[in-house]
Amino acid sequence: MRPSIVLFGDSITGHSFEPGGWGAALTNTFSRKADVIVRGYGGYNTRWALFLLQHIFLLDSTNPPIATTIFFGANDAALLGRNSERQHVPIEEYKDNLLKMVEHLKKCAPAMLIVLVTPPPVDEDGRKDHARSSYGDKAAKLPERTNEATAVYASNCVELAQELGLPSINLWSKMQETEGWGKKYLSDGLHLTPEGNAVVHQEVVRVLSEAGISAEVMPFDFPHHSEIDAKNPEKAFQHLCL
Amino acid sequence: MRPSIVLFGDSITGHSFEPGGWGAALTNTFSRKADVIVRGYGGYNTRWALFLLQHIFLLDSTNPPIATTIFFGANDAALLGRNSERQHVPIEEYKDNLLKMVEHLKKCAPAMLIVLVTPPPVDEDGRKDHARSSYGDKAAKLPERTNEATAVYASNCVELAQELGLPSINLWSKMQETEGWGKKYLSDGLHLTPEGNAVVHQEVVRVLSEAGISAEVMPFDFPHHSEIDAKNPEKAFQHLCL
Repeated sequence: MRPSIVLFGDSITGHSFEPGGWGAALTNTFSRKADVIVRGYGGYNTRWALFLLQHIFLLDSTNPPIATTIFFGANDAALLGRNSERQHVPIEEYKDNLLKMVEHLKKCAPAMLIVLVTPPPVDEDGRKDHARSSYGDKAAKLPERTNEATAVYASNCVELAQELGLPSINLWSKMQETEGWGKKYLSDGLHLTPEGNAVVHQEVVRVLSEAGISAEVMPFDFPHHSEIDAKNPEKAFQHLCL
Repeated sequence: MRPSIVLFGDSITGHSFEPGGWGAALTNTFSRKADVIVRGYGGYNTRWALFLLQHIFLLDSTNPPIATTIFFGANDAALLGRNSERQHVPIEEYKDNLLKMVEHLKKCAPAMLIVLVTPPPVDEDGRKDHARSSYGDKAAKLPERTNEATAVYASNCVELAQELGLPSINLWSKMQETEGWGKKYLSDGLHLTPEGNAVVHQEVVRVLSEAGISAEVMPFDFPHHSEIDAKNPEKAFQHLCL
C-alpha cells in the first residue's frame, strides 16, 4: 500500500487543488511516492471539525496516513459581534480542540507525523474590499476578522505544538516577513493567492522533510522506465512477486 | 468510505498535478465528493504497465475505485528505428493490452466505470524543437513519434471502447479540432500545456457525468458549514451516529 498524507483543515485546505494550490503541488512533489488526500471543509472551525474527526481518521485503519496537517483557526478567529460570529471559537477551546485532534490521531497511529499549521495573517483592507465587492453598500464597515485577533490563535497553535513536541508552521509570522504580504499572498484578505499557496507548499515540504518524510529519499513505487530492459522487461518487475 | 477515481496512465497522467494539471482540476471538481488518485508512470507503455496492474488494482479491495481512466498509447506509438524505439509496442498488442487492463478492472469491480483515453496528437515540429533544445546538434533529425502513427493507436483505442461498450475520449481528434493545437495544447509536441490539460479535464468531467458520475449530483461527505446551527451543532451531525 502506498503511504498517504492527509490535509485536514478548512477552506484554505479545501481550495488547495485550485490552480496554483498547495495540495496539488504537494501531490506533485510526492508523485509515485505518497498519495495526498484532501479533507478540507470550508467554513469549519475546530469545534465543528471535531465531529468529523473519527469518521475521517478511523481507529482501526490498516493503512493510516504517515502524516497529517491540521490547519484550522482562520474561522475560529472570526470575531464575536461581527458578520461571521457564528464561526467564532474561544481561544482556549481552539487550543483544546487541536489537542483533541492530535490525541485522536496519535491513537489511530502513534507513528503518524502531525503538523500543526497556524492560520495565515488577515489583511483587513482585503477583507473590507471583498465585503464591498460581495455586498456593495450593505457591506459591514468593520472586517469580520482582524490580524491582531488571528495572531492569538496562531501563537496558541504554535505553543501547543511546542508543548506536544510536534512540528508546526507559523504561517501568520512567515507570511508577514515579506513586504506587501497582504496582496501578494492573500486573494481576499484571507484565502491564498498562488504565491501564498507556494509559501504553504514550501513550508509543508520543509517540515515533512525535517521529520524524515522527503520525496527525495522515498523509493519510487515501481521501477523508473529507464530501468526497464525492453528486451526483458520481466526482470525489472521480478521483485513484485508476480 | 469516500469513493475514489483512479487515473492510470503514462507521464501525461503522472504530470497531471503540475500547475494547471488535469488531475488537480479533477480533484477540485470532486472536492468533498470523491478522491482522485494518480497512478501515472512516465515513459511506460501498455506492455510495461501490465506488470503494475494487479498491484495497483487489487482483486480483493474492499473499496475499489468507482471510475478509472486508462490513458496510454503515447509511448506505445514511439516508432521503431528512431530514438524511443524501446518504448514501441505493436498496435495489435497495444489494443490487446488495453483489453487485459479492462478485463482486470472488471474483475476487481464489475460496476467500475472504465474510460479509455487516446493519446493526444503529436506536433512533430514541437518534438523536433524539443530534441534540439535537449541535445543541440546531436538531436535526431527525425521525430521519434509522428502524428500519423499515433492516429492508429488512437483509433484502435476508440474502437476497443466501442467493442466493449465503454466510454472513450478521443483526444487525438478532439485537440485537432482547434486551430493551432500543436502549440496551444502541447508544450513539447507531446505533453500538455495548461490549456491542453483543460481540454482533458473538461472531457473527463463530461464523460464521467454522462455515465452518472457527476460532482453536481453526488452528496457532500459532511454537512455544508451553512447547515450547522452554531447554537446546536450536534444536530447537523446526528446522522453520522456519533
